[in-house]
Amino acid sequence: MIYDSKKLNEKTEEKKITSRLEDYSQWYLDVIDSADLAEYGPVRGCMVIKPYGYSIWESIQGILDKKIKETGVKNAYFPLLIPKSFLEREAKHVEGFAKECAVVTHHRLEEKDGKLISAGELEEPLIIRPTSETVMYDIFSRWIRSYRDLPLLVNQWANVVRWEMRPRLFLRTVEFLWQEGHTVHETEKEADERARQMLNIYKDFAENVMAIPVITGVKSDSERFAGAQCTYTIEGMMQDGKALQLGTSHNLGQNFSKVFNVKFIDQNNTEQYGWQTSWGVSTRLIGGLIMTHSDDKGLVLPPKIASIQVIITTIVPSEKDKELVINKAEEINKILKTKGIKSETDIRDLRPGEKYFEWEKKGIPLRIEIGPKDIANNTVVFVRRDTGEKIKVSLDNIESEAEKILVDIQSSLFKKALDYRKEKTKVVDTWEDFVKEIEAGNFVLAHWGGNAEEEEQVKTETGATIRCIPFDQKEESGKCIKTGKPSNKRIIFAKSY
Amino acid sequence: MIYDSKKLNEKTEEKKITSRLEDYSQWYLDVIDSADLAEYGPVRGCMVIKPYGYSIWESIQGILDKKIKETGVKNAYFPLLIPKSFLEREAKHVEGFAKECAVVTHHRLEEKDGKLISAGELEEPLIIRPTSETVMYDIFSRWIRSYRDLPLLVNQWANVVRWEMRPRLFLRTVEFLWQEGHTVHETEKEADERARQMLNIYKDFAENVMAIPVITGVKSDSERFAGAQCTYTIEGMMQDGKALQLGTSHNLGQNFSKVFNVKFIDQNNTEQYGWQTSWGVSTRLIGGLIMTHSDDKGLVLPPKIASIQVIITTIVPSEKDKELVINKAEEINKILKTKGIKSETDIRDLRPGEKYFEWEKKGIPLRIEIGPKDIANNTVVFVRRDTGEKIKVSLDNIESEAEKILVDIQSSLFKKALDYRKEKTKVVDTWEDFVKEIEAGNFVLAHWGGNAEEEEQVKTETGATIRCIPFDQKEESGKCIKTGKPSNKRIIFAKSY
Repeated sequence: MIYDSKKLNEKTEEKKITSRLEDYSQWYLDVIDSADLAEYGPVRGCMVIKPYGYSIWESIQGILDKKIKETGVKNAYFPLLIPKSFLEREAKHVEGFAKECAVVTHHRLEEKDGKLISAGELEEPLIIRPTSETVMYDIFSRWIRSYRDLPLLVNQWANVVRWEMRPRLFLRTVEFLWQEGHTVHETEKEADERARQMLNIYKDFAENVMAIPVITGVKSDSERFAGAQCTYTIEGMMQDGKALQLGTSHNLGQNFSKVFNVKFIDQNNTEQYGWQTSWGVSTRLIGGLIMTHSDDKGLVLPPKIASIQVIITTIVPSEKDKELVINKAEEINKILKTKGIKSETDIRDLRPGEKYFEWEKKGIPLRIEIGPKDIANNTVVFVRRDTGEKIKVSLDNIESEAEKILVDIQSSLFKKALDYRKEKTKVVDTWEDFVKEIEAGNFVLAHWGGNAEEEEQVKTETGATIRCIPFDQKEESGKCIKTGKPSNKRIIFAKSY
Repeated sequence: MIYDSKKLNEKTEEKKITSRLEDYSQWYLDVIDSADLAEYGPVRGCMVIKPYGYSIWESIQGILDKKIKETGVKNAYFPLLIPKSFLEREAKHVEGFAKECAVVTHHRLEEKDGKLISAGELEEPLIIRPTSETVMYDIFSRWIRSYRDLPLLVNQWANVVRWEMRPRLFLRTVEFLWQEGHTVHETEKEADERARQMLNIYKDFAENVMAIPVITGVKSDSERFAGAQCTYTIEGMMQDGKALQLGTSHNLGQNFSKVFNVKFIDQNNTEQYGWQTSWGVSTRLIGGLIMTHSDDKGLVLPPKIASIQVIITTIVPSEKDKELVINKAEEINKILKTKGIKSETDIRDLRPGEKYFEWEKKGIPLRIEIGPKDIANNTVVFVRRDTGEKIKVSLDNIESEAEKILVDIQSSLFKKALDYRKEKTKVVDTWEDFVKEIEAGNFVLAHWGGNAEEEEQVKTETGATIRCIPFDQKEESGKCIKTGKPSNKRIIFAKSY
């Protein structure tokens, strides 16, 4: 017998994905669960990234690492543990992170009355890095002597810990993985250019690799990174209309260099403080990927980020065809691999529908179905994950067709997300419309002239925050949506993650 | 003027490498410092891996990750923080790690009387992973239901923390980077085969990529991993004759599965405990690399692990030749890169000697020197880092010569290290000779029939420990070097790191 139902993963049978309309938050969790991406570990809010989820992170790392290095940045590794006193040096920085610090106070366990207790109390408590500005810049202060040591351009791929009280898988977890780049420059201008350059790399990566359209711009005072002079951001729109901050790049000015003594002797032999930047993206990108493209059948992956781009599934109605079909599937697999396509075969003895179901949930961009009838006709069937469209393709030009369709899926996903964002971005001129459009789950482009307090009021009343002051908005005169004060640019408001 | 001495890195001028004979420990630190590999960070015993050092780790990761994946293992990521109670479950495991645990007791900082104090005390303290058996196996217990989920084969690249009281860069640091693989199997035999398979991958990697000859074998009871049934090891000999454990692979039996409930329903529908393995190598490999190949001029890197294999240095005696020489250097660089050789140019306006000195300290396997005279003769000069040998090479076959010499450097380094180990491995039959040869800094092959207590005595009296019971030793009857008890195999004793 061919279909061994015992071999079907029991968990697969049980899972049903909640629809987006029914319950968006549950849908998000169901997509993650049914694609086997991640789950919570034993410590509250800490995430286990399962092999398939981690393969997406490896794709992100592989592509982004290359792009970062192409700009002259080198990878390095800095300590996980930061003396508490370091965090205290930059006033705003500590204000931003004190509430979510994991604190190490002891360095061993000791038995006492049959129980293990914390022992070896540290003279100074240590913080597990929530971000590495403080520890890196203390070290930079020893590395840099003169302008000849600048620019200093380093990046690290690392784990960080921020004690989030309301964790959500990938979006906000107590521990997450990221890259954090840190640079030191001779001039303010050069630092600002670097901060913008890295933001553009994130934008390019989000749009051209992850197929997530993003708005680039500047954060408002209240959303700025703790300790930065200016924070640049890329913001994506999720399918519930909420914004997700997908990456940030900070012009730190001299705020940190002054407290960590990151100084250099300039070309005129004068001591100067360095101008700094930091910038990062994290496993949150995977959350953005899920919420941009996936549907009620599960995950949808853009080909450029998929660890498996094509899955070749065999259909074997009777035992006598088995060898023929499997051989053909392996042959196609080889051909596709030769073309640099990441393909795999699924030759398991399962009902075809079960196999399709599984790969759909895992978001594989293109499925190739092959059975004895197809072979007899010298064809196979292509099934696109994004549209569900079935296409009969001749075995003779399978690789060029696969390449073409993968390219089309990549651009279609981007276009679809972009169209969606355009449709759900409203230009608004009255407070009444503002409230209405925010309530309807849209991005709102409105004039703004308020201060931080008034910004907070908007949040309290509508749930929306300033996502960014977009780079691409033209100057035009108008009146602040909330205060009536004059404004010369529309900015983006939305509810956000 | 051509030689701009200002551009010379000041630190370069100052550094002098202590010779191995003079002070081996200082030599090790000097090699690390002068090659710019790593340094200590602000927290005692925590290491900063500098960009050049990290590029070596990236080489290791890139090559080894591929080899591990080829055996069917997939990468994943598990939490950094482990509940204290998890560690307690396996008695020997906690015994082995309790003394070096970093303990997280609070999850925020709070201002009190103008000072930041630890706040938000955790109900249960958390341990920063010293290794991940406990947290992974708790998770595995939920992933595995039946034999169809086995073998489970995962690996993670991560940081771990062990509170070392006597830290040494790369060899023993409070935080280090590593990969840890963890597998679960249906049978004891399969688990043992996997543990041995991974040890062989480490051996192959050490010998054929890092050019470090290693002895493979089984650890004695007292050197076994805390909680393992059997620990396999690869041991290298450093230039001071001491052994360095470069990687271990553990057959864990059912020790952990029984306490973490890693169970499966077998093919006969009976519940069974899984058979497990774990295995890892760390940034310690870089310490082994340094101490195997480097010399009194600094680091020596085998070509297969070097991030720069060839450095092309320009010699420009007068301004008029500058363009010609630089163009030629860039041309050679392109040719070598096309051949897949990792080459770079050094066209800085420095005295040639200064450039040579710098690249020598950084261990670049092959230096190509090119000046106007060379170009006129259609030649360049190759200088091997390992031997210092200078070779005139025609510009016409530069890429094939470079390839050939790199291959030769790789095998020569291995052979040199192997010869050294052979020379310094002594077969010994009396206690008197044993003491003498250990004192002389040798590996000793001797018969052994003692127990753990007697092993400890040997350590106290001579400083030597059992490095391993080697796989490749033939059976032969003899008498224990210490107790006179009968023995059927010689084993390896040495002082070690």
